[in-house]
Amino acid sequence: MKKSLIALAAVAVSGAAFAQSSVTVFGVVDTAVSYVNGQDNWSGLNSGGNQTSRLGFRGVEDLGGGLKANFWLEAGILADNGSGKSGYSANETSSDALAFKRRATVGLSGNFGEVRMGRELTAAYNATSRYDVFGQVGYGASKVWTDAGVNGDSTTQRVSNMVTYLSPDFSGFRANVNYGFGEDKDAQTAKSSNSASRYMGAGLTYDNGPLSLGLGLERRNDGANTGVGANAFDVNAWSLGGSYNFGVAKLAAAYRNSEAKYSIGGDKDKTKGYYVGVSAPVGAAGEVKASYNRYEINEAGAAKQKADQFALGYVHNMSKRTAVYGTYAYIKNKDGANVRLSSDVALKDGEKQHAVQVGIRHAF
Amino acid sequence: MKKSLIALAAVAVSGAAFAQSSVTVFGVVDTAVSYVNGQDNWSGLNSGGNQTSRLGFRGVEDLGGGLKANFWLEAGILADNGSGKSGYSANETSSDALAFKRRATVGLSGNFGEVRMGRELTAAYNATSRYDVFGQVGYGASKVWTDAGVNGDSTTQRVSNMVTYLSPDFSGFRANVNYGFGEDKDAQTAKSSNSASRYMGAGLTYDNGPLSLGLGLERRNDGANTGVGANAFDVNAWSLGGSYNFGVAKLAAAYRNSEAKYSIGGDKDKTKGYYVGVSAPVGAAGEVKASYNRYEINEAGAAKQKADQFALGYVHNMSKRTAVYGTYAYIKNKDGANVRLSSDVALKDGEKQHAVQVGIRHAF
Amino acid sequence: MKKSLIALAAVAVSGAAFAQSSVTVFGVVDTAVSYVNGQDNWSGLNSGGNQTSRLGFRGVEDLGGGLKANFWLEAGILADNGSGKSGYSANETSSDALAFKRRATVGLSGNFGEVRMGRELTAAYNATSRYDVFGQVGYGASKVWTDAGVNGDSTTQRVSNMVTYLSPDFSGFRANVNYGFGEDKDAQTAKSSNSASRYMGAGLTYDNGPLSLGLGLERRNDGANTGVGANAFDVNAWSLGGSYNFGVAKLAAAYRNSEAKYSIGGDKDKTKGYYVGVSAPVGAAGEVKASYNRYEINEAGAAKQKADQFALGYVHNMSKRTAVYGTYAYIKNKDGANVRLSSDVALKDGEKQHAVQVGIRHAF
Repeated sequence: MKKSLIALAAVAVSGAAFAQSSVTVFGVVDTAVSYVNGQDNWSGLNSGGNQTSRLGFRGVEDLGGGLKANFWLEAGILADNGSGKSGYSANETSSDALAFKRRATVGLSGNFGEVRMGRELTAAYNATSRYDVFGQVGYGASKVWTDAGVNGDSTTQRVSNMVTYLSPDFSGFRANVNYGFGEDKDAQTAKSSNSASRYMGAGLTYDNGPLSLGLGLERRNDGANTGVGANAFDVNAWSLGGSYNFGVAKLAAAYRNSEAKYSIGGDKDKTKGYYVGVSAPVGAAGEVKASYNRYEINEAGAAKQKADQFALGYVHNMSKRTAVYGTYAYIKNKDGANVRLSSDVALKDGEKQHAVQVGIRHAF
Repeated sequence: MKKSLIALAAVAVSGAAFAQSSVTVFGVVDTAVSYVNGQDNWSGLNSGGNQTSRLGFRGVEDLGGGLKANFWLEAGILADNGSGKSGYSANETSSDALAFKRRATVGLSGNFGEVRMGRELTAAYNATSRYDVFGQVGYGASKVWTDAGVNGDSTTQRVSNMVTYLSPDFSGFRANVNYGFGEDKDAQTAKSSNSASRYMGAGLTYDNGPLSLGLGLERRNDGANTGVGANAFDVNAWSLGGSYNFGVAKLAAAYRNSEAKYSIGGDKDKTKGYYVGVSAPVGAAGEVKASYNRYEINEAGAAKQKADQFALGYVHNMSKRTAVYGTYAYIKNKDGANVRLSSDVALKDGEKQHAVQVGIRHAF
Repeated sequence: MKKSLIALAAVAVSGAAFAQSSVTVFGVVDTAVSYVNGQDNWSGLNSGGNQTSRLGFRGVEDLGGGLKANFWLEAGILADNGSGKSGYSANETSSDALAFKRRATVGLSGNFGEVRMGRELTAAYNATSRYDVFGQVGYGASKVWTDAGVNGDSTTQRVSNMVTYLSPDFSGFRANVNYGFGEDKDAQTAKSSNSASRYMGAGLTYDNGPLSLGLGLERRNDGANTGVGANAFDVNAWSLGGSYNFGVAKLAAAYRNSEAKYSIGGDKDKTKGYYVGVSAPVGAAGEVKASYNRYEINEAGAAKQKADQFALGYVHNMSKRTAVYGTYAYIKNKDGANVRLSSDVALKDGEKQHAVQVGIRHAF
C-alpha cells in the first residue's frame, strides 16, 4: 500500500510536472559597476560582466525509440537599462527590443547524433572559444575570436539560416558541422554569386577527463548585404585550442588565424590571435582566473599592428546560480593599433586602457 | 486513510499546480529548408512551413458561478533567424523584435458566451479560413483569404482595438462578431470620416459531427493611415466554406469575394477566390493533403487576371507536438497576373513558380 | 507511516515546484473602451485603465544565512494592439516591441537591507506616488508626478543604470536611495560636465497601521542626450504625501514641487502639484474612489498657468486578479494652460476635456 500511495502521488506530481515541463524559462541577469581609464575616464553600469544577460525558453520532448525533439529560443538583454539586444552580427539589424538573436533552433536527436535548424553559435566558434576563462564576456573577454575587432573582419559568432549536424560522442571525439544558407536574394537570383553570405564551418572536439582539445574551421562568403559594397570579401578562419585540468589549476591556450580576401584586387586583411589562460579554485566557493592575449593585425596595404591584453578576475559563487565577481583588464597597443576594452573611451597616449568592473550574476 | 493521504498529496500537487497554472507558456518552432524555382532559383531556410512559429502566454481564471476570465498574448517569431514578427497588417508598424501582434486579448466568459477586447484574428477570417488544409502557412497556403496578395486590398486577418462577442454553442451553431474601433485620430477629430479604419465583421459557423460550415462577412473603412493617401477605400468581403469528413478523407471547399471601393471616383478593385482541398490519414501517424486554388483579380481599369495554385503536402506526426513535413506547390498565372509563391523570386516566363519545402514543426 | 508518506509526497511536489520556482511569469492585461470629449470627440480601445498592461519574469533564490538573490524583468505592453511599450523616458528610445523598460534589476538582500542594480522606478517617485488612488494609470491618473506634462520637465519615473540601496524596516521607517550613473559618454570624456544625465534621489517612508507617510527628494542633471540641446537643465524636485485609513474610507494627499534650471541664463521652469484622494470599499467586492488635482505651471518668461483635474472611479473586484472598472475624469485649464487627459484630442474652448473609460483588468 505504501508503494501504491507513493506511486499515485508520484503520478499526480509528474502529471503536474509534465504539463509544465514542455517549456523551461531560463536566463541570466548580470550587472556590474564599471570604470574605464583611457584618454578620459568613464564610469557606469554595464550588463554582462560574468555571463551575458539573457532570457530564454527551451524544451525537450521524448518521442520514444531514443528519438527526441528539442527547441531553444534565447534573447539577449541589457540588464542595466532593460533593453533587448537583438543585433549580433553584420547581417542582422539591431533594435532595443527583445528578439531571439542568441539562439532560435528546432532539432531532432537520436543515436545518429542531432540535426538542428535555425540560428545559433557556430560549431567552429564553440570548438575553441570555450577555452576563454572569461567566457567571452566583460572587459576580460578575449578578442581572439572577433579578429581583435578589426573593422569588416568581425567574425560571425552566430549565423542565421543554418542547418547543423552534431555527431554522437565517439570515445570523447565529436564533430559538428554548420551550413548557413546564403539567403541574399539579389545575389542568388542574379546568379552572379550564389554563395553570397553563405557560411560553412566545422568544429572538432576531444574531451577526455582533464584533457580537452578543439579545432574550428570556417568560411564565409560575404555578399551585398554586408555593407562592404562592391568590394565584397570572403573570410577564411581556423582556430586551435586546448586545456588541461591539473586540479589545483586549469591551463588553457588557443590560436586563431583569420583571412579576409577582397573580391576586387584580391588583397587580404589578416589577423592572428594568441590566447593563454589559467583558472584555479580558491576555497570552497571562489575562483581566480587570468589571461593574456596577443593580437596581430595585418590589413592590406598597412603596416603590421599589435596589441597585448591582460586580464585578472575573481568569482565568488554564493550558489550555483548566483555569484559576485570582479574583473580587471589592461590593453596596450603598438604600431598604431587601436584595440580597446571599451569602444567608447579613447586610448591613453594612443596606446593604453585600463578597465575594472564589479558585479552580480544571477542565473535562473 | 488511503484516501486522505491521496487527497493530501493531491492538494499539495494542485497547490503547486495552481501557483503555476495562472500562466501557460506555449509556442511553436517550425523551420524548413526551402527551394523556389521561378525566373531564377532561390534556396534557404524558412520559418513556419506547417505552423507559424510563435511564443505565447495565456491563462484562464475561474471566477465562480460559471464565469471565467482569460488572457492571451501571442507573438510571432522567425525561427530561421530568431527575429520577432511584429508587423502583420498595414496599420501596424513592423520591427524585427518580439511583440504580441498575433493576439493580445483579455476576456470574460460565461453562459452568455464571451466578451473579449484587444487584437486577434477576425471572426470572419476564422469562420472559413479554417478549411485550408495547409493551415494558411507555407508555400501551400491558400491566398483566397488575402485577396491573392493584390496590392492595397490585402485583407485584414488580424485587427487591433476590437471588441468581440462570441456566442455560446447552440446545437452546433455559433455566431461571433467583431467591432474594431477606427482609432485614426486625425480622421475622427476632423469629423470628416469618423469611420476611418473602423472594422466590422461576423463569423457564423455550424459544426456537427463530420459536417462543418462557415460564413464570414466583413467591412473595413480605410482611412489616412493605410498609406493609400487621399484616395482611400472601403473593403467589403464575404466568404463561404465547408468541409465533410468521410473518414478515409476529409473534403473541404471555400469561396471568397472581396471588393475595395475607392472614395474618389467610386472605382472598385475586385477579387474572387475559389478553394478546394482534401486531407487523408496515412497509417497511424501520417497525413497527406492536397489543394487547388483559383484567384480572379479584377482591378479597376485593368483587364481581368487569373492564377491557379496547386499544392501537395505530407505530414508525419512523430507525436502530438512534433512533426516532419514536406510541401510542394505550383502556381500558374494568366492574363498578366503576378501572384507568387515567394515574393522574392520572379515568375518563370512571367507565369510560373514551383516551390518545395521540407521541415520540422515542434509545438510546446 | 502517514507522516513519511506525506513527507515523500511533499518532497516530490516541492521537487517539481522547485524546478519551476526559479522563475515566476507574471503580468497584467488591462483593456478599456474609452471616450474623450474635447474640441472634438474620440473613441477607441486603450490599454491600462486600472493597471498598466505588462509581462514579467522574476525570481528569488535563498542563498542561506538570511541572504537572498533576486531578479526582476518587466516589460510594458499595449494590450489593445499587442505592441510592446519599450520607451518610457526621454533617455530611452521607443519601439513597438517588447523590452524590459519597466524594470530590469538584480539584487542581494539580507539583514543589511537590499542592494539592487539596473533600471526601475525611483525611490523618490515610489515614496509619494503610491498615494494616487488611480495608481498613476488611466484618465484618472494624477499628473502631479509628471510635472503636469510640461514639455521638457517630464520627471524621470524610471531611471536606467542605477545602484539602489533599500534599508530594512525600522519600526515602520524605511529609507531607499538611488544613484543613477550619468553614462553620457561625450559629456564624461569631455570632462565638461561629468554629471550629465546623473540621477540622485531618495525616498523616505513611514508605514504604521492606518497611517502612511512619504517624502521624495531627487536631482537629475540633464546632458546632451535629452534633446534639449546646448541649453541643458538640471531638475530638482521634492514631494510629500500621506494617507490615513479610517476603515470606511482612506484619505490621501500629496504635494510635489519641481524646478528645472537652465544651464544658460539660469532661468527656471517651475511646477507645483497638489493632490487629494479618497477611496472607500463598497460591499464585499467594490471600491469607489475620487481625486482632485491642481497643477500650477510657471515656465521661465511666461505667465503662471493653472489646471484642475477631477476624477471618479469604481472598481468591481471579481477576484483578487480580475476586476471590471469605470473611470470618469474632467480637466479644466486656466490662464492658457494646456494640460490634457488625452494628448490626442484638443481642449474644448481651449480649456476643458472630459474622458470616460470602462474596462477589464486581469492579472496573472
